[in-house]
Amino acid sequence: MAVPPSTYPRRLLPLFLGLFQGALLLFFALFVTYDEPSAQVEDTNLVANQVYSTFPFFQDIQVMLVVGLGLLLTFLPRYGFSALTHNFLLLNFSMQWALVLQGLLHHFHHGQIHLDLHRLLISVFAAVTVLISVGAILGRASPCQLLVMATCEIPIYLASEWVIVTCLGVLDVGGTITIHIFSCYFGLGVSKALFGATQQPLHPKETPTTSSDLMSLVGTLILWVFWPSFVAVPCQPGDAQHRAILNTLLAMSAGAITTVVASSLLERDGKLSPGHLQNGSLAGGVAIGAVADMAVPPAAALALGSLSAAVCVLGFRFLTPLLARKLTLHDQCGIHNLHGLPGILGAAASVVAVLVAPKDTAGSQPSQLSPALCQAAGLAVALGAPLLAGLLTGAALRLPCLARPPERLCFDDSLYFKIHDQAESPGPDGSAEEEALALKEQV
Amino acid sequence: MAVPPSTYPRRLLPLFLGLFQGALLLFFALFVTYDEPSAQVEDTNLVANQVYSTFPFFQDIQVMLVVGLGLLLTFLPRYGFSALTHNFLLLNFSMQWALVLQGLLHHFHHGQIHLDLHRLLISVFAAVTVLISVGAILGRASPCQLLVMATCEIPIYLASEWVIVTCLGVLDVGGTITIHIFSCYFGLGVSKALFGATQQPLHPKETPTTSSDLMSLVGTLILWVFWPSFVAVPCQPGDAQHRAILNTLLAMSAGAITTVVASSLLERDGKLSPGHLQNGSLAGGVAIGAVADMAVPPAAALALGSLSAAVCVLGFRFLTPLLARKLTLHDQCGIHNLHGLPGILGAAASVVAVLVAPKDTAGSQPSQLSPALCQAAGLAVALGAPLLAGLLTGAALRLPCLARPPERLCFDDSLYFKIHDQAESPGPDGSAEEEALALKEQV
Amino acid sequence: MAVPPSTYPRRLLPLFLGLFQGALLLFFALFVTYDEPSAQVEDTNLVANQVYSTFPFFQDIQVMLVVGLGLLLTFLPRYGFSALTHNFLLLNFSMQWALVLQGLLHHFHHGQIHLDLHRLLISVFAAVTVLISVGAILGRASPCQLLVMATCEIPIYLASEWVIVTCLGVLDVGGTITIHIFSCYFGLGVSKALFGATQQPLHPKETPTTSSDLMSLVGTLILWVFWPSFVAVPCQPGDAQHRAILNTLLAMSAGAITTVVASSLLERDGKLSPGHLQNGSLAGGVAIGAVADMAVPPAAALALGSLSAAVCVLGFRFLTPLLARKLTLHDQCGIHNLHGLPGILGAAASVVAVLVAPKDTAGSQPSQLSPALCQAAGLAVALGAPLLAGLLTGAALRLPCLARPPERLCFDDSLYFKIHDQAESPGPDGSAEEEALALKEQV
Repeated sequence: MAVPPSTYPRRLLPLFLGLFQGALLLFFALFVTYDEPSAQVEDTNLVANQVYSTFPFFQDIQVMLVVGLGLLLTFLPRYGFSALTHNFLLLNFSMQWALVLQGLLHHFHHGQIHLDLHRLLISVFAAVTVLISVGAILGRASPCQLLVMATCEIPIYLASEWVIVTCLGVLDVGGTITIHIFSCYFGLGVSKALFGATQQPLHPKETPTTSSDLMSLVGTLILWVFWPSFVAVPCQPGDAQHRAILNTLLAMSAGAITTVVASSLLERDGKLSPGHLQNGSLAGGVAIGAVADMAVPPAAALALGSLSAAVCVLGFRFLTPLLARKLTLHDQCGIHNLHGLPGILGAAASVVAVLVAPKDTAGSQPSQLSPALCQAAGLAVALGAPLLAGLLTGAALRLPCLARPPERLCFDDSLYFKIHDQAESPGPDGSAEEEALALKEQV
Repeated sequence: MAVPPSTYPRRLLPLFLGLFQGALLLFFALFVTYDEPSAQVEDTNLVANQVYSTFPFFQDIQVMLVVGLGLLLTFLPRYGFSALTHNFLLLNFSMQWALVLQGLLHHFHHGQIHLDLHRLLISVFAAVTVLISVGAILGRASPCQLLVMATCEIPIYLASEWVIVTCLGVLDVGGTITIHIFSCYFGLGVSKALFGATQQPLHPKETPTTSSDLMSLVGTLILWVFWPSFVAVPCQPGDAQHRAILNTLLAMSAGAITTVVASSLLERDGKLSPGHLQNGSLAGGVAIGAVADMAVPPAAALALGSLSAAVCVLGFRFLTPLLARKLTLHDQCGIHNLHGLPGILGAAASVVAVLVAPKDTAGSQPSQLSPALCQAAGLAVALGAPLLAGLLTGAALRLPCLARPPERLCFDDSLYFKIHDQAESPGPDGSAEEEALALKEQV
Repeated sequence: MAVPPSTYPRRLLPLFLGLFQGALLLFFALFVTYDEPSAQVEDTNLVANQVYSTFPFFQDIQVMLVVGLGLLLTFLPRYGFSALTHNFLLLNFSMQWALVLQGLLHHFHHGQIHLDLHRLLISVFAAVTVLISVGAILGRASPCQLLVMATCEIPIYLASEWVIVTCLGVLDVGGTITIHIFSCYFGLGVSKALFGATQQPLHPKETPTTSSDLMSLVGTLILWVFWPSFVAVPCQPGDAQHRAILNTLLAMSAGAITTVVASSLLERDGKLSPGHLQNGSLAGGVAIGAVADMAVPPAAALALGSLSAAVCVLGFRFLTPLLARKLTLHDQCGIHNLHGLPGILGAAASVVAVLVAPKDTAGSQPSQLSPALCQAAGLAVALGAPLLAGLLTGAALRLPCLARPPERLCFDDSLYFKIHDQAESPGPDGSAEEEALALKEQV
């Protein structure tokens, strides 16, 4: 299945991307337009206020995704350039692809799709699912495989989001269910189908160095700082948004402290694990999303943040090795611990919050089911649908033409980039020798 | 006093933090609540406007503290992970602890404490004092010692801030007196009491490398960019806030240029010292805080910025070695040069500004003293109180159970983190050997 | 022309900067003031709204220039500290210098210059031109040379901007013509005159390492994220600003994808070049500036972004080597590819956009020429004037007293900074030996 560099299909990536960008350009030329300029002064003020109330949040989220998440993924010491670049490329690709699909599905009126900042933001949210899912197979998949995965994941996300939010009326302002749980199980499904039943051995380039761990921690801190913007931007301005910001801040603060507690308790010598810190500190933000704007007391936000950080660290310590052993499930970045488990915790909390809430404040559910049942049904959809779709997508990624890198060249920037040297390891295992070896390799 | 790794009390940190987080959770469950949702449309708009006018500033400040200050502290080449993580942990711990104490002191009405973004911001300001004070003992103190220090410093800060701002009516919008001077002298007091009369020898791991100096400079630049937000957020919206932003920008710009001048003049060969740049560029921001929103002319902001940068660089060149020699005072990051001296300069400027100001615009001083005398009295409180309290706190930190690291293991991430390797020095002085040596060490 | 370290004029830099800062202080004391505080409540609200609508954009731009552009320039592995520091120093110097000149030219009424956030922002825009131009000679020029260059470039920029925008009425909200094209050709002129007819050989320290390329890419990503703020801040609030944000986002997104396509197609083995990614991803933002707020359709923004990224990568691959060979033109950072070519493309697009636009929406052109001719005339001014002025400035920079570094010490932080070691290369080519060699060098 993996392809030796000699026959590596170098032209597939630009061909695929070039065709996509050309087709998108054509689609935009035919169907996409901006709103007419406002004729009235009041309308102008309205637009200006919308810009001022959305744009700072939008920029915060862009920093999170492009810089924060990008840096978080650089923990692989010889794969930092790939991690940053692929993350950036996938964000742009998925966002544009989501823009097209959303336009066709929801906003196609009189042959035109009107574009505004809010719709761009919604497309960025769709792209987030791809960026999360990639974490399961980071370093072992080619850019072409990642792009095909994004192509499949975006429409499935839009469909599942439509079922969960529009049909079932699930309350999930921060995307706990629709984004985090969805993308986690999609990624795990892809990983399972792609890597099959063979357990992935530990690769020598997989172990972080101090400096790659440090860069990754900086990414975590950037994500940590701007997470409240991510959760609060879709909220109703006013009290709900204010509460969403506060709840997220509290959950993330409690999560940060609990991560240190849990990591220190779980390691025999009491030392903290960088991986736990990089992920656990963010678990509170994943979990709080489903209830952030509800009338939950501050203590509940703290408890949820603490609990999800503890669950995340426990997952890294016990569940990931177990899944790898029993199910031969490969999860490179531990997305199940950061997005899956805290997401489920948050979804469960939203069921409780809806049950406890007074009847008239729980939102107007369009379905006939009770609100709590809807939340639970939404969780079930966000677990099952992406897992199935991910398995199918992963099977498609096994196509030889997609050029999965051979094991020897995994986790190595030099397969994709004209990197001048690897200052970290000037030894005899340089990339040139490796490629020569890989040429001989019988795949 | 220092503890060998064999008996290093690894369980103390999670125990302390876990108990704290549990008690805080209980406290929140019993006493803390959000405001009732607004019933009126006007109220909703009011809340929304408050969010939009505070939240961007709040995010800027979080970036400063978590990313900027964190990176600034990574100049110790083998202690970067500890510096970032301890800074992050202390911010969260101190902020939550300040939230509790402030709630009890100021906002406890009818058995309830109402939480909003503004009160969170005030708690973050309280936490800043801890993050600054840590600079005096960075690398030579255990996380437990830092947490105990934070536990002591926050209530003392709140008391001193109450005396200075509420009782004396001191004008200090940017925290020059209440935050910078206070935390500097608290940190120095702790350092003096903790390290006693023995001069700390230069540690081989204390010397920055090019790459650690570069990371630290990036931290400085992040702090430099967002400093105006830090100073301007507590201002009255409108002219005062506008002036505070402009004054801070001018002071920091002049400070940046003057740092280069001073550093170049003071070194024999005219080369710039990275440490001077990392700190001097920010001195203008420290000094301007006390007068930023007053009706001072732009030239005064420039002059204050220049002067404080020059004083900061002079401090690094002459005062720090002098204090180390004469008073055996250890100041790892030079907080006296960045926060102490420019702070005193800013406080002096505020005395002059209040003296010069027309009578009716100097603010309504609640005390009977003249405004200028009040500013001077505030300075005296912010010098004396933290020094005394710091000495007492430092004495408490000598408790053996707090596990001060042995000299050999100072400035080393591997004491606290499961770091995979030290790419920088693969030589025979690896951390494994060190720990073995440390085990034999008689402390 | 170059000066050996023994006679390196170490005191020139602090002397020049110190005199500048002193003179500026005097000028501010004599002539610069803030606006009077607003007497009316409505005025206060107006000021507050101006602060809230400008300040977040202003901070975004500061992050771009200080952190993003600074990091982008750290691709030279042993020159990172110089790149960050000189960029920071030049920003402050040029901004203050522009503040003085602009005040004298435009805002000098009744012996006073009133300072506000908007005028500071305009001065920051002027400083951007210097930061871009430096890219042509980065690593081979001394700080004194850079400061003299800034001293010359700012008044020429202000004059050319006055001709282009005020006299010719050119529409250029994002500074494509006035900032990017201008500064590119100024920088190329300086480079040509400074380095003369000798082709610069490839310096051993010029080749990026993986880690310096990674830092540089992080800088690109920061610039990419905040670019919409740079383009949109001078727009009319409301529809025009909204459209400018959307157009910039679309152009930059298409540019990012097209960069990958172009880079992959141009390299024989299909690998991506870090330099292409670092620059091409931003080309869309350069080009879109001239038309961002016009009523162009979204597809045009996508097309312009794609085209300019392709042109930028093609420029790196073919034009830069050609110019170096045929014209002995040295362009260290490839500013001609990132700012020159995409800028010209954007200017051409603005001619078309103005031609196509309905008559009444093309802005009120103060001149008698047709709007499209004005745009073209503006482009001509922005090409010719800076090239000529740059050549003259570059000739002035050849003055021996400005201390151009000898070839051996180019691209080396240790000439300007007390750097403790070069962890990357502990070999025999350490900086101490080099300086000794340089001492013997006959320049």
